[in-house]
Amino acid sequence: MKQAVMSPATHESDLHWMSLALEQARLGIGFTSPNPAVGAVIVAGGELIGQGYHRQAGLPHAEIEALLDAQSRAPERIPGATIYVTLEPCSTQGRTGPCTSAIQAAGITRVVWAAQDPNPSHVGRARQLLESAGISVTTGILEAQCQEILRPFAKWITTGLPYVIAKAGQSLDGRITRPAGEGPWITSEAARAHSQGLRARVDAILVGAETVRQDNPRLTLRNGSAKEQPWRIILTRGGHLPAEAHVFTDAYQDRTLILRDLAFPDVLRDLATRGITSVLIEGGGNVLGQAFASRSVDEVCWYIAPRLCGGGLPVIGGPPWAQSVALESVTLLPIGDNICLTGRPVWPNNESDHHP
Amino acid sequence: MKQAVMSPATHESDLHWMSLALEQARLGIGFTSPNPAVGAVIVAGGELIGQGYHRQAGLPHAEIEALLDAQSRAPERIPGATIYVTLEPCSTQGRTGPCTSAIQAAGITRVVWAAQDPNPSHVGRARQLLESAGISVTTGILEAQCQEILRPFAKWITTGLPYVIAKAGQSLDGRITRPAGEGPWITSEAARAHSQGLRARVDAILVGAETVRQDNPRLTLRNGSAKEQPWRIILTRGGHLPAEAHVFTDAYQDRTLILRDLAFPDVLRDLATRGITSVLIEGGGNVLGQAFASRSVDEVCWYIAPRLCGGGLPVIGGPPWAQSVALESVTLLPIGDNICLTGRPVWPNNESDHHP
Repeated sequence: MKQAVMSPATHESDLHWMSLALEQARLGIGFTSPNPAVGAVIVAGGELIGQGYHRQAGLPHAEIEALLDAQSRAPERIPGATIYVTLEPCSTQGRTGPCTSAIQAAGITRVVWAAQDPNPSHVGRARQLLESAGISVTTGILEAQCQEILRPFAKWITTGLPYVIAKAGQSLDGRITRPAGEGPWITSEAARAHSQGLRARVDAILVGAETVRQDNPRLTLRNGSAKEQPWRIILTRGGHLPAEAHVFTDAYQDRTLILRDLAFPDVLRDLATRGITSVLIEGGGNVLGQAFASRSVDEVCWYIAPRLCGGGLPVIGGPPWAQSVALESVTLLPIGDNICLTGRPVWPNNESDHHP
Repeated sequence: MKQAVMSPATHESDLHWMSLALEQARLGIGFTSPNPAVGAVIVAGGELIGQGYHRQAGLPHAEIEALLDAQSRAPERIPGATIYVTLEPCSTQGRTGPCTSAIQAAGITRVVWAAQDPNPSHVGRARQLLESAGISVTTGILEAQCQEILRPFAKWITTGLPYVIAKAGQSLDGRITRPAGEGPWITSEAARAHSQGLRARVDAILVGAETVRQDNPRLTLRNGSAKEQPWRIILTRGGHLPAEAHVFTDAYQDRTLILRDLAFPDVLRDLATRGITSVLIEGGGNVLGQAFASRSVDEVCWYIAPRLCGGGLPVIGGPPWAQSVALESVTLLPIGDNICLTGRPVWPNNESDHHP
């Protein structure tokens, strides 16, 4: 290992520059499938001279975007500069050339990255290539934060299955319907608007047929998102689907897919074959019940309204589970008097059906 | 009205001294039934010279406690001083003499109070008596905060019924039992300890017979509380109650009361005749269901664990309600990864059965 002992000051400035690279990475979230969201900045003499992020599969990686930016701003300062990247640079020829080669060719002399490549066949390659070219390598800076936004990619690249986010909007007592005559909404308008932002993170939005029959949702992106309309997946056991529903008649009707009579793990395998790397389940209760019962959920995003319904459909439907599931990494976000709670299901490690 | 226009500086210092009176009042919460928790401070020349709170029914009111304190610290400074009280001073002979007389006799020349006496037969008396004795009166300072701790007393004095707090501990999906073999606890130890603090606020703790049969709770005060053990009320429809249960056999067995075959509003009327001014419902689901369905609940305190149970007993049991109920004045308190949510049910005003 050539890596020198770092002074505390170096470490602090590394954290600073990596946090800027992470900001860049966030700009790509939802647009890069099947690639991960990655950001990079280039620093020379304590000054930022280039930044960039991966915008879309087929377009340049973050490192190349940052090098192009630096070439337009201060090409003479690139030799001897440091590049900060949220993910280990690629070392293989993909749709674009390997970033390790581009970094070396540009004269960069230090590379800092946060998270290791989740692709098991790539691990360790970048460090070896760069260090043998005399380039200093530092890793693990802001690792946890950068891994967080890589989780969907990491799930897909290691299991072949899409990353699954389960969303629900419920009353305090866990109901998703109100007594007759009270109207359909439980969570506030602000909470529902917030929840629609989740759609911009995924390749597909999934609901059960009953949700289409009862709520006739549009499942579209809002606020003029530049992202392509995610697939709309309708699960049905073969019941009637209303031909006039929004998802079958609107401008995005070619982005609606009906899957019939599949167990939930088979749904995910089907979606994977279609190149879908992430999916947002928007209900209803029976679909959520199946998704959790098959341990398919990677992240939950739960909206809670300060209301007690005292009856109505439960947020989790279907047969009672054999085991409950705890959430970890819990966050709470108040949205007016509603709450958004996020967390990750803790699936038992010692069971063979972890990823069925 | 003799009240002069106050300068902003006077108002600011009034807020400061009243906040100290409120701190005093909080010391009495849970100990003063059937009286309200009240605090007072006495200020002369910009300095605090006395403070006190009502400790227990039959003992001196807060104003007298503060006057006694001032007499022991700086008796010569009481004439011309200002007294701050969280509640309008009493003007009638109760178990103790009227505070308006004591204030006048001590030579106090200005009285500031926060909240008006909720007892409709007392309203306006104190101001009239004090002003006719040449004492300046200011009211409404920190009124909302001081009224908040008077709410249980205000409910009881205006309706004759006890103030009702409904407590629950549930999974995120609104369940109070876990799948077989997982043990009884859903909320964390810290959340359960926090919830036991509610017991120190009330005259009685109420549970259903099924809770006694399933959980065998003690329903006692913890952490060496100096407060008398609240009544333990067991509601039953006539089913078997286990004679060996803690509530029937422990050191407080004479503080356990069984109420049979009563509709929930009749339970509250029964408790009122026993001098019980506040009650904490600790479950189970059916008792909570009855309490809300009869619109008897004044405050909720809901503990939520980050776990999905996917089945089990719902937190609200019994027949579905005809109407849902929204909560207002919602607060959120994270307790580790659990949440304590409090709020007040918003019962429709236009219904005659508001307080059945």
